[in-house]
Amino acid sequence: MYLRIDRLQVELPAAEHPDPRAAQAVQELLGGRFGEMSTLMNYTYQSFNFRGRKELKPFYDLVANIATEELGHIELVAATINSLLSGTTERGESPDYRLAGVAGVGNPHHFLVSGQGALPVNSLGAAWSGDYVFNSGDVVLDMLHNFFLESGARMGKLRVYEMADNPMAACTRSPTRRRWRS
Amino acid sequence: MYLRIDRLQVELPAAEHPDPRAAQAVQELLGGRFGEMSTLMNYTYQSFNFRGRKELKPFYDLVANIATEELGHIELVAATINSLLSGTTERGESPDYRLAGVAGVGNPHHFLVSGQGALPVNSLGAAWSGDYVFNSGDVVLDMLHNFFLESGARMGKLRVYEMADNPMAACTRSPTRRRWRS
Amino acid sequence: MYLRIDRLQVELPAAEHPDPRAAQAVQELLGGRFGEMSTLMNYTYQSFNFRGRKELKPFYDLVANIATEELGHIELVAATINSLLSGTTERGESPDYRLAGVAGVGNPHHFLVSGQGALPVNSLGAAWSGDYVFNSGDVVLDMLHNFFLESGARMGKLRVYEMADNPMAACTRSPTRRRWRS
Amino acid sequence: MYLRIDRLQVELPAAEHPDPRAAQAVQELLGGRFGEMSTLMNYTYQSFNFRGRKELKPFYDLVANIATEELGHIELVAATINSLLSGTTERGESPDYRLAGVAGVGNPHHFLVSGQGALPVNSLGAAWSGDYVFNSGDVVLDMLHNFFLESGARMGKLRVYEMADNPMAACTRSPTRRRWRS
Amino acid sequence: MYLRIDRLQVELPAAEHPDPRAAQAVQELLGGRFGEMSTLMNYTYQSFNFRGRKELKPFYDLVANIATEELGHIELVAATINSLLSGTTERGESPDYRLAGVAGVGNPHHFLVSGQGALPVNSLGAAWSGDYVFNSGDVVLDMLHNFFLESGARMGKLRVYEMADNPMAACTRSPTRRRWRS
Amino acid sequence: MYLRIDRLQVELPAAEHPDPRAAQAVQELLGGRFGEMSTLMNYTYQSFNFRGRKELKPFYDLVANIATEELGHIELVAATINSLLSGTTERGESPDYRLAGVAGVGNPHHFLVSGQGALPVNSLGAAWSGDYVFNSGDVVLDMLHNFFLESGARMGKLRVYEMADNPMAACTRSPTRRRWRS
Repeated sequence: MYLRIDRLQVELPAAEHPDPRAAQAVQELLGGRFGEMSTLMNYTYQSFNFRGRKELKPFYDLVANIATEELGHIELVAATINSLLSGTTERGESPDYRLAGVAGVGNPHHFLVSGQGALPVNSLGAAWSGDYVFNSGDVVLDMLHNFFLESGARMGKLRVYEMADNPMAACTRSPTRRRWRS
Repeated sequence: MYLRIDRLQVELPAAEHPDPRAAQAVQELLGGRFGEMSTLMNYTYQSFNFRGRKELKPFYDLVANIATEELGHIELVAATINSLLSGTTERGESPDYRLAGVAGVGNPHHFLVSGQGALPVNSLGAAWSGDYVFNSGDVVLDMLHNFFLESGARMGKLRVYEMADNPMAACTRSPTRRRWRS
Repeated sequence: MYLRIDRLQVELPAAEHPDPRAAQAVQELLGGRFGEMSTLMNYTYQSFNFRGRKELKPFYDLVANIATEELGHIELVAATINSLLSGTTERGESPDYRLAGVAGVGNPHHFLVSGQGALPVNSLGAAWSGDYVFNSGDVVLDMLHNFFLESGARMGKLRVYEMADNPMAACTRSPTRRRWRS
Repeated sequence: MYLRIDRLQVELPAAEHPDPRAAQAVQELLGGRFGEMSTLMNYTYQSFNFRGRKELKPFYDLVANIATEELGHIELVAATINSLLSGTTERGESPDYRLAGVAGVGNPHHFLVSGQGALPVNSLGAAWSGDYVFNSGDVVLDMLHNFFLESGARMGKLRVYEMADNPMAACTRSPTRRRWRS
Repeated sequence: MYLRIDRLQVELPAAEHPDPRAAQAVQELLGGRFGEMSTLMNYTYQSFNFRGRKELKPFYDLVANIATEELGHIELVAATINSLLSGTTERGESPDYRLAGVAGVGNPHHFLVSGQGALPVNSLGAAWSGDYVFNSGDVVLDMLHNFFLESGARMGKLRVYEMADNPMAACTRSPTRRRWRS
Repeated sequence: MYLRIDRLQVELPAAEHPDPRAAQAVQELLGGRFGEMSTLMNYTYQSFNFRGRKELKPFYDLVANIATEELGHIELVAATINSLLSGTTERGESPDYRLAGVAGVGNPHHFLVSGQGALPVNSLGAAWSGDYVFNSGDVVLDMLHNFFLESGARMGKLRVYEMADNPMAACTRSPTRRRWRS
């Protein structure tokens, strides 16, 4: 059972300027194989399916708690994408050509399918898939997987940071870094 | 930001007998197009991307609150699947043939890939996909979608209820029904 | 522009007995890589995109006409599947356990998702995909593709015929065979 | 059974200038989740699988007739895409670099896989999928779905209209609008 | 550049009896996320893309050599599946009902699409995907991935071994085990 | 069983200049439906599953030998892509903005997921799929398929040649052309 607090885990700076190409890149950190949807759902299913919760209580607690924290991570990355997309197009009196400026720019689904908002897809626009969840039932193997998953997630964050010249996007790196360091 | 309480939303009866075929069917209610993963992620992304939260506060609150309740729904359906799979195979002294009894029965990934636990897949074993999320940015259209989604979810629950002769599986129908009726 | 006549291209015998396993197999002839959805959509897109319609009129006419005939083929195979599924379950007074007899039998989506009707999927339940359409713009290469496609379709029909012990399913072979022979 | 008349449902203006980026966007209206392939196939399968055709004749006729009209819609949208792609590249004496001008522009499959023609894919180049078909067998639920589907299709058409500064692409909005208004 | 020797890496016992259900399970070891197609293609692409081959020669050699050995592994697992499928159906004088005995048994594509031979798919019949390849360009991270991949592969082999009561299938475990132990 | 020789089949000229758009296009020749992954895996599975090797020895030898040669082809196309990507970005002292120059250019996975190396994907970034393998068990039909496959592969190579103004990419056409002509 879950509760939700209507607040982000960290304060995010607003995007300096609208940037649909950066928004496309940051999608990798949300819906990519190593994005926050993957970390969220891996820990979540591992906690749901955990057998022997009493005998292995510290492991169960660890997995269940990280799963919950990851909910805040998809929220943060979605907020980043939304901020980068804000102001990309202008509301005018006439609907004609309102989206002409973004033809061929970034992920076309940000403009044609969603309302210029975050989607559970990667930087190519391909949907996040439940195939990215690994949960063998062998707790040692699951931990090994998680270590690999977090390492891949860190790599993705570093690279998106290097690609986006916008302080907003750079912040997507923070949450995981803190977890790695402290 | 989220908190998690280590308790299910409702009490579930234990499965009367192991039933891998029912577990395969109940997967439709977790990872199918109209399963709880879909309701969860539709409301969640709609709340993340909601613009005009102040002007449309009752709608934002509704969407955000349902999203949070849906987290408890994937937890419930996963618990149902796990209970149905429990005891399907026996732990013996020799690993030989331990899984021989489930060759060709139910979803083979329950036995070969997961540790006899719930997966984010449907009754065919196909992974849940981010393509199932709809969020147009037009709040009327999004509400229409959600009404259709919940109607499809209800249909799925009724049919799984009719297929599974196990009180455990029948309970999967309850949470949504309550929401529909009261 | 198209017209529709509310009649099947050939008369189909009714299924001798309900047979969800045969229905699952016949789906390969509808939504498989070499099924009627593929022949329909290959000829259709080749006709839509045909350049030089005057210079190559006989080829354009051939492709456009076969495309139209294929519409009748998806209709026939769907009718076959529907006949095989008819009567699989019984309507009783109580909905309890109405679908219990088909747990683990055939394609679960025939019972949980569709109303015991044909779906645009193959014998594994995987959806037909637009990736199966080939249209290079080189008419010789497109014709070569079509010859291969029809040969693969013939193979599929022969094998489903050999698998299904039901006169209804056997008829799915007829339409294409006639085209091959006369 | 179907007949085909070698004429478009409405007259289309020619594209003012070649525009591969607009062609890429218009693909969403052909092979996207809410594109004409989806409306066509939803009505088509709903009509194929319709039980109780006598008792519910007005509904059966409605669904079967719309299905037929939708065939003309995929034809119209394909014609639009073909017109937008015409003249994108020049036929020269030497094949060298003939496609150099479209490297990185629009959907690469328009140039590398198809012969600069329409494909059953969306604006990302992802194939149309049979998973987009909904046919529950419950006629009320199917109608609700269709209402949602048409609403999503209308949204897509409006947005592509706003993105493409070409009278040709704007016409893709017409057929459905007429159906909505008159 | 490669050479091929027309011989298996190890001698395989013949299948004791035809077993299409075991063949379906063994497909996980060929085309599953942790199957031999994945180990083959991960090492192969890591070797193709290796930069700094001189400076890191021992690592390059290791990766390139394992890649080559993996070619023999997909050959072995395919041979196992073929042996398990041999004799499943009988060649009679009449083609009628020749495949009737395998309706609803194992992977239907073994009988309807392939010629009762191995396919690059997993135990659900889902195709192997290039998405399973990981190659970050960071050699430490790639090694970590490979360690996880091999651990997942080992788990899969143990479980298929426990499911299949056929000495032939049991042998699929051998090649990797030897590599792990000696 | 296979051996590998650490040498390319032909000598490749180095790319004249880094060209991520050409690298994206050349991916079609590696992981597309008609790319070298497809030719490799079609011949490979056809040779693995070949029954009657003695009676049909010339056919078996032909298929098995081409399969082996195709391994060298994926190696060549991967080397082409790697050469085109080399130097696209610069190694500086600060990681900030190192990838800013390639935001929105080519395939984002070349920069965010792989280490600027070849991937088993097509020009859209979609993964190569085992569904591209055809092996019916009917040797005549398999040969017909292969003839179609090679014709499609030739078309793809010609078009990529016309798109890329880089001598390196042009070479990707050579290996197959030689096989067709001599």
